[in-house]
Amino acid sequence: MSQLPKIIKTHSSVKQTMTVQVMDEYGDLMEKEIACEHPLTVYLNWVEVVTLMTLGERPSALVLGYLKNQGFIEDINAIESLIIDWETNSAAVITRENTDGIEKKLSKKTVTSGCGQGTMFGNVMKKLEGVQLPQPTIPQSMLYGLLESLTHHNETYKAAGAVHGCAVCKDTSILSFVEDVGRHNAVDTLAGEMWLQGETGADKIFYTTGRLTSEMVIKVAQMGIPVLLSRSGATQMGYELAKKLGITMIARAKGHRFQIYNGSENLILDVKGDAAADKQINAATDAHQDAKKRGDA
Amino acid sequence: MSQLPKIIKTHSSVKQTMTVQVMDEYGDLMEKEIACEHPLTVYLNWVEVVTLMTLGERPSALVLGYLKNQGFIEDINAIESLIIDWETNSAAVITRENTDGIEKKLSKKTVTSGCGQGTMFGNVMKKLEGVQLPQPTIPQSMLYGLLESLTHHNETYKAAGAVHGCAVCKDTSILSFVEDVGRHNAVDTLAGEMWLQGETGADKIFYTTGRLTSEMVIKVAQMGIPVLLSRSGATQMGYELAKKLGITMIARAKGHRFQIYNGSENLILDVKGDAAADKQINAATDAHQDAKKRGDA
Repeated sequence: MSQLPKIIKTHSSVKQTMTVQVMDEYGDLMEKEIACEHPLTVYLNWVEVVTLMTLGERPSALVLGYLKNQGFIEDINAIESLIIDWETNSAAVITRENTDGIEKKLSKKTVTSGCGQGTMFGNVMKKLEGVQLPQPTIPQSMLYGLLESLTHHNETYKAAGAVHGCAVCKDTSILSFVEDVGRHNAVDTLAGEMWLQGETGADKIFYTTGRLTSEMVIKVAQMGIPVLLSRSGATQMGYELAKKLGITMIARAKGHRFQIYNGSENLILDVKGDAAADKQINAATDAHQDAKKRGDA
Repeated sequence: MSQLPKIIKTHSSVKQTMTVQVMDEYGDLMEKEIACEHPLTVYLNWVEVVTLMTLGERPSALVLGYLKNQGFIEDINAIESLIIDWETNSAAVITRENTDGIEKKLSKKTVTSGCGQGTMFGNVMKKLEGVQLPQPTIPQSMLYGLLESLTHHNETYKAAGAVHGCAVCKDTSILSFVEDVGRHNAVDTLAGEMWLQGETGADKIFYTTGRLTSEMVIKVAQMGIPVLLSRSGATQMGYELAKKLGITMIARAKGHRFQIYNGSENLILDVKGDAAADKQINAATDAHQDAKKRGDA
């Protein structure tokens, strides 16, 4: 009989942003809202595993997703309880049975794209061998609808910049959206959430504001999600892994614009390209996004 | 008598970019250049430490900087040799004497901002206690001159996007510029380079395209550099550490625009702000940068 972990938060949440005073190029002082980084030290059966620096929105999901994606725990039911205590900046995860070899796992780590959390590359790739992801059909109109929804969703980013956003989506709906200071935390958080919910990734689309690197592609494959969408670009290894794992990879997606690196055969170009209209929409989207980035919007 | 490590590269370099075919929103196929990620597994006295995913421009400096910033080695002269072998994707570092406690160091890691390489936060902050960084005077005109130089310098980024650039600068000159898939790799590479050269950081400015997070500020302090400049934003912890360590923190710096988070008293506003002219320059810079980001330039 499956039993989900008991999740306990001993102290109230932490704030995601704070206001500071800065000086601009004219010597004028102004208030700026910036994103917070909170250290969260994860203990697995009392062994210290890692300290994650996080915006702190969804610590339980983050901790679960991290442990899953790093290969520390495979079955959600193996976890008895998870305690988040912001006063000591710690997260304690207790499993029903002993976890052997934590130290061994801890000593082998991979840092990917300079943004690493020990993916233990070789082991992970081995586990993904033979993974069969579905090849869903993606109407271009649905993609545009989804991008439109996402434009309105970047909450903290709008306010404070310096964060990455990720979302699990279905058709044109955003099922879950999370932001964190690092994109890997954001992915891990959504992975943890889906793991807890027992949700399938097969009919989902994963969106990220971050770059499509090897680690991003691997994590999305681990979540069983066959479509990866990003506002940013891709790396060669992200591209090669997407091809190998059968993930539809859509990069530089914004407004009415995108570049498909893999899986273009799955896309239905059902929107008659009106170059003039698209150009207008794209220009407006760019201006809006870039103003936000500069902290002007 | 000091003796620098012997650096050996057994195989030729790896390429930084590759070309792939992508499909755009009109169904048109085009060639795109994307950045490469090469795994580089670092062994310290035959103990596997980490696998870094890197663009591969300057592997020796990257490996040295990583080991220094993570606290594995303190004295450059302690290293006997460093061998880079791209055929096996490995870097072997041998020290003159035994390194005790590598496994212990390996088992305690900090992942910062989701982009972690085990900064072992507590230990690092302890070592930085009492660090006195100089408070250099920074003419605004010099800052603009430097930003102008940097605009022309983003090589791989111009071509392939998906990379971060960092530079060690002096006045308006770029002394060393490096790009990598992750900003932490780029910082570590420059740290390694300065360590090898025995160069002081006191009269330098550190520039990054990446966000000014806690890890970025810590690493720049470890390099002894008192001024941190970024095109992007800052996080609360980056800001607080900059204040604590006395680092002049200038964010969102582009064209004729910037925001000073700390150290504004060090800036000399010697450029008579011509709002109209600035607006023109800033608009041009933004348009250029944003076009590059979209992969259109």
